[in-house]
Amino acid sequence: MAILPTLSGPADLKALDAARLPELCAEIRDTIIHTVADTGGHLGSSLGVVELAVVLHRLLDSPTDHIVWDTGHQAYAHKLLTGRLDIFTTLRQLGGMGGFPRRGESPHDVFDGGHAGTGISIGEGLALARDVAGTTSRVAVVVGDAALMTGLSFEALNDVGERGTRLVIVLNDNEMSISPTVGAMSRYLSRIKLSRTWRDSRRAYDDAVKRIPLVGETAHEWSLRLRAAVVDFAQPGRLFEDLGITYIGPVDGHDLVGLEATFERAFQAMERPVLVHVRTRKGRGYRPAEADKVSFHGAALPPMRVVDGTADGTAGDGEATPSDAQRAAERRKPRTYTAILSDELLRIGHEDPRVVTITAGMPTGTGLARFGATFPGRMYDVGIAEQHAVTLATGLALGGMRPFVALYSTFLQRAFDQVVHDVCQNDAPVVLGIDRAGLVGEDGTSHQGMFTLATQRQLPNLVIASPRDEQQLRRLLRTAFTQDRPFALHYPRDPGFDVPEEQPDPIPVGTGERLRAGSEVLVVGFGPIVARGLEVADRLAEDGWSVEVIDARFAKPLDRELILAGARGKRLVVTLEESAIPGGFGSAVLELLEEHRLADPALRDVPVQRVGIPAERFVDHGSVSDLRRTIGLDAAGIHQQVASTLELAGLRPGTPASPTVARSA
Amino acid sequence: MAILPTLSGPADLKALDAARLPELCAEIRDTIIHTVADTGGHLGSSLGVVELAVVLHRLLDSPTDHIVWDTGHQAYAHKLLTGRLDIFTTLRQLGGMGGFPRRGESPHDVFDGGHAGTGISIGEGLALARDVAGTTSRVAVVVGDAALMTGLSFEALNDVGERGTRLVIVLNDNEMSISPTVGAMSRYLSRIKLSRTWRDSRRAYDDAVKRIPLVGETAHEWSLRLRAAVVDFAQPGRLFEDLGITYIGPVDGHDLVGLEATFERAFQAMERPVLVHVRTRKGRGYRPAEADKVSFHGAALPPMRVVDGTADGTAGDGEATPSDAQRAAERRKPRTYTAILSDELLRIGHEDPRVVTITAGMPTGTGLARFGATFPGRMYDVGIAEQHAVTLATGLALGGMRPFVALYSTFLQRAFDQVVHDVCQNDAPVVLGIDRAGLVGEDGTSHQGMFTLATQRQLPNLVIASPRDEQQLRRLLRTAFTQDRPFALHYPRDPGFDVPEEQPDPIPVGTGERLRAGSEVLVVGFGPIVARGLEVADRLAEDGWSVEVIDARFAKPLDRELILAGARGKRLVVTLEESAIPGGFGSAVLELLEEHRLADPALRDVPVQRVGIPAERFVDHGSVSDLRRTIGLDAAGIHQQVASTLELAGLRPGTPASPTVARSA
Repeated sequence: MAILPTLSGPADLKALDAARLPELCAEIRDTIIHTVADTGGHLGSSLGVVELAVVLHRLLDSPTDHIVWDTGHQAYAHKLLTGRLDIFTTLRQLGGMGGFPRRGESPHDVFDGGHAGTGISIGEGLALARDVAGTTSRVAVVVGDAALMTGLSFEALNDVGERGTRLVIVLNDNEMSISPTVGAMSRYLSRIKLSRTWRDSRRAYDDAVKRIPLVGETAHEWSLRLRAAVVDFAQPGRLFEDLGITYIGPVDGHDLVGLEATFERAFQAMERPVLVHVRTRKGRGYRPAEADKVSFHGAALPPMRVVDGTADGTAGDGEATPSDAQRAAERRKPRTYTAILSDELLRIGHEDPRVVTITAGMPTGTGLARFGATFPGRMYDVGIAEQHAVTLATGLALGGMRPFVALYSTFLQRAFDQVVHDVCQNDAPVVLGIDRAGLVGEDGTSHQGMFTLATQRQLPNLVIASPRDEQQLRRLLRTAFTQDRPFALHYPRDPGFDVPEEQPDPIPVGTGERLRAGSEVLVVGFGPIVARGLEVADRLAEDGWSVEVIDARFAKPLDRELILAGARGKRLVVTLEESAIPGGFGSAVLELLEEHRLADPALRDVPVQRVGIPAERFVDHGSVSDLRRTIGLDAAGIHQQVASTLELAGLRPGTPASPTVARSA
Repeated sequence: MAILPTLSGPADLKALDAARLPELCAEIRDTIIHTVADTGGHLGSSLGVVELAVVLHRLLDSPTDHIVWDTGHQAYAHKLLTGRLDIFTTLRQLGGMGGFPRRGESPHDVFDGGHAGTGISIGEGLALARDVAGTTSRVAVVVGDAALMTGLSFEALNDVGERGTRLVIVLNDNEMSISPTVGAMSRYLSRIKLSRTWRDSRRAYDDAVKRIPLVGETAHEWSLRLRAAVVDFAQPGRLFEDLGITYIGPVDGHDLVGLEATFERAFQAMERPVLVHVRTRKGRGYRPAEADKVSFHGAALPPMRVVDGTADGTAGDGEATPSDAQRAAERRKPRTYTAILSDELLRIGHEDPRVVTITAGMPTGTGLARFGATFPGRMYDVGIAEQHAVTLATGLALGGMRPFVALYSTFLQRAFDQVVHDVCQNDAPVVLGIDRAGLVGEDGTSHQGMFTLATQRQLPNLVIASPRDEQQLRRLLRTAFTQDRPFALHYPRDPGFDVPEEQPDPIPVGTGERLRAGSEVLVVGFGPIVARGLEVADRLAEDGWSVEVIDARFAKPLDRELILAGARGKRLVVTLEESAIPGGFGSAVLELLEEHRLADPALRDVPVQRVGIPAERFVDHGSVSDLRRTIGLDAAGIHQQVASTLELAGLRPGTPASPTVARSA
């Protein structure tokens, strides 16, 4: 590496001889490839936009001008060009550089993101703020072709076009989001690129005109007018023009000279919104990634060697490419909840022809791809369109089907209204498969699955369940399909526990399970954290405490009898969940106990300690195990939290609970 | 009325002589107009689709075939045609017929709705379910032009086009949602209708061809080819065609014969998705409503006389037309929170040029229209695009502005992810004006503002406040703009209390106010329900209790000191909120007390009773006062709930609290 280490920021890049840019791009690619092999990360998308990042930073004056990287996973080159080479090796590690733009990291990062489709709205906001303030900064938004198809992007395009907001939208079209982009708009983009409509119509016209034997004055005039009309109508990007946005393209995203010329024009002529359609090749410069775009966007890959990128397992998607170390660890681990669910869903699909599945651009990540391959007419990938996914599921349910919608917990936030207004209001038998519930790790703040549970607890008609292990997952999935109600099934990104498979009998809704008897402390958990609850019980037993452990299984409805019985006469009740604490599962247990404390003296002196994800701040990136340790959600951390409480209360193991004192009345 | 009473359902309609249909339409309009004058309701949109409803029900076989009415406020004619004339006078009344389709009311109602943009997704779900099941039912979705511009509708169109799902989308284009439709797509639709591109290009071509002196064989062939190209390219609706959806239109939505012919064709040729663009006139058949479309969509109108529809106040939007009785009541009432906010925001706008405002299709309903009129470059109406509204606000905040986004609580559900991921993750100083927080009344289940508070309590960086009266609203609004953090300000649809205006000093964040001292019962409330809390305190005082009342003002952060001090040694703490109970404000207070109970003996024996909206079911339609009475949230109901608890606990006023017993340890 000769150039990259000499660049401390965009100013150095501008000063660089243009002839050296190809070499710089190669250095950037090399750095990304070798770092991601170590740290994991989004390889393909970042490799695709190296030239684009270089050209934008040469033409614009960041941070006075703003470059918004939609979704944010394509920003590695941008990070390297803005003085972060020295921390680049800490990519996505605890305390290290984030995998998405982070305002705390650099003034060149405009927006902390991670979800697709926010960029145009953010960019328009920056542009309108500029117009109100009367300054002259330029705004560029780089948005992928799949992110462009989110409802949010469309709402933004519609507004930008109407208002004529001056900004440059760069459509980074690699024909591939996490999975091959679906949707009619995508097909439209392909048509622009493949069909040559424009050139054909122009050539056909010219040829024809030449063959007209006599062309009078009038006819000639008419011919010019008509030609203008034809060219106008047949021009690619007419759809954007119809929305009021000037379309330029498509241009080759790896041609530095062409890109620079195009963007110079786009920024100069910026009287109104401009969309520059750039064709890029995902994984550009790394042959294995170019050849297998899905895998190299994706996660859960077996070890990748940098030389050939070989992998010997199935491909994943939806998350960043894992590191070598992560992949090695994956191989030793039991199968994931997602994989188990995928198997069971296939079986259910064979048994019940009404079962259909829906995913929003994550067929592999959610494990639904196999369902789709087995039942081609019964799996719908709607692209990055969580809102539509959930409302479509409602329609399917109203039409007599039994839809299973698999979304990551963090992305289901996009469809909160659809869960409320469509699924629950209509009491439709939709099964919401809420994958990646809990901590997800290296993707950081934007991706943790921690805000869904508390939002759902208040919703009429909805059942909320989570398994403590993969066998319970099978059973709860079966349970979901025995219901005629909305059912939310939360499960984690984690591997399971290698629990042997048994007959997956449905579980009566609202029943928990006592896993361990005890007289002094009750631990009641929701989801896979229950396993840690059992470990905590062991540790507390070592301290001398008699600990009861309940797997609630359902956060709604709670197993009131079991939990109240378990809590009666205890010295402390501890609730466990891997979700934000305020209003979450622990609050549900607290609410239950409080409702019964007045009438039930045996509950009055039983304090409730709620253990979960503290909601004072977003949870940063890092491995899941590091994060759990950091926020005290591993077994040791939970034990310590509980021990502190017992000590604070001055409680000692073995002594009987204080006799309940009848209140004077 | 001669025909309508004889129709018990669509079968009777089909049997009717076509010659009598105009008379039937007149009867339907007459029934709607006179009923809405009594009951309130959505007048204009329902009057616009009378012919459409008649034609669809004659051509389709509901309920075997499905007619989905997007948003649902345009379904009155549909209700009258499906056997509900006899209950039509109970429209939107407690226990009466709902203002939106309700599956519980009729098998002809496909979907319980109320929010815009869900229809195409629901329709596609029904169509795909049909295809899986292998049946032959037909699906029609009627969607308004403004609802078509929601991100959800776009996601659905994109999917329908890609999949080629066989259904008919009826674009009910009245150029007017609640307010004149904004957005580039809308302008595109107008261009189709107004610019005559298609006809012009065809005529220009034909004229020109006639004037060519000699047309040889080759030129003639070419001319035909080129004409086809021109016609194709210039055809209106090309944008939909680009998305893979066959476009037919525009057709006159009040021409029964034309409509019938068009839809016959659309349903017969239904090999792929078809969009029929129907032009309707909002308020058709009722001259005052045709002339003033905004008002007659809207609410908060002064009394309307059926004869001339005169109104002597300002127009509103966002909700249904109110009844005569409602309007008379409005005139006697103090000004609304919305109106007070609108005034104060204007003042703030004059003082701080960074303040900009955003609304999503509700400029009048949210009171922002005046801000827009005063500061034309600083108010953005983005149409029905709540997601974009919130992310745009984030961009504006990142650009140095101080955006105020006004959305109804129920519609903010659409932008939950944007509040989490954009506003809060970026800790952006966006003020979320959450209008219609709490019960909203006649619009019913889909519109109650009851699910927002519990979702927000878990969000890092967010401050959550609500005023107990209009003076507090002014102060909290001022407070919001003194912050550098995200701020959620919840206020109701209600009128205020005619509290005299004072200097609106900012309130330190996280401080509540003790309104009344007392020793036995603590009532702590959030928002305007605090006024009812004071009434309840009076009633409890009459029962002999000494009652303290605290206005929390902030649900996050809570005024921990004030609430803990107020709770210490009390016999009962009662929390009040007009929002769903699980995980809500009351849970915040309970969580706070529970966290301190172990360390603070004076809190151990203080039970918490959480009073709010029970979340076992959605809250139906009816006047706000009726609803409050029904669910026990008026002062009498709250008093009764509290009195029951005191009795259940065996407590009597005047006796001292039981001495706190030190726990054995």
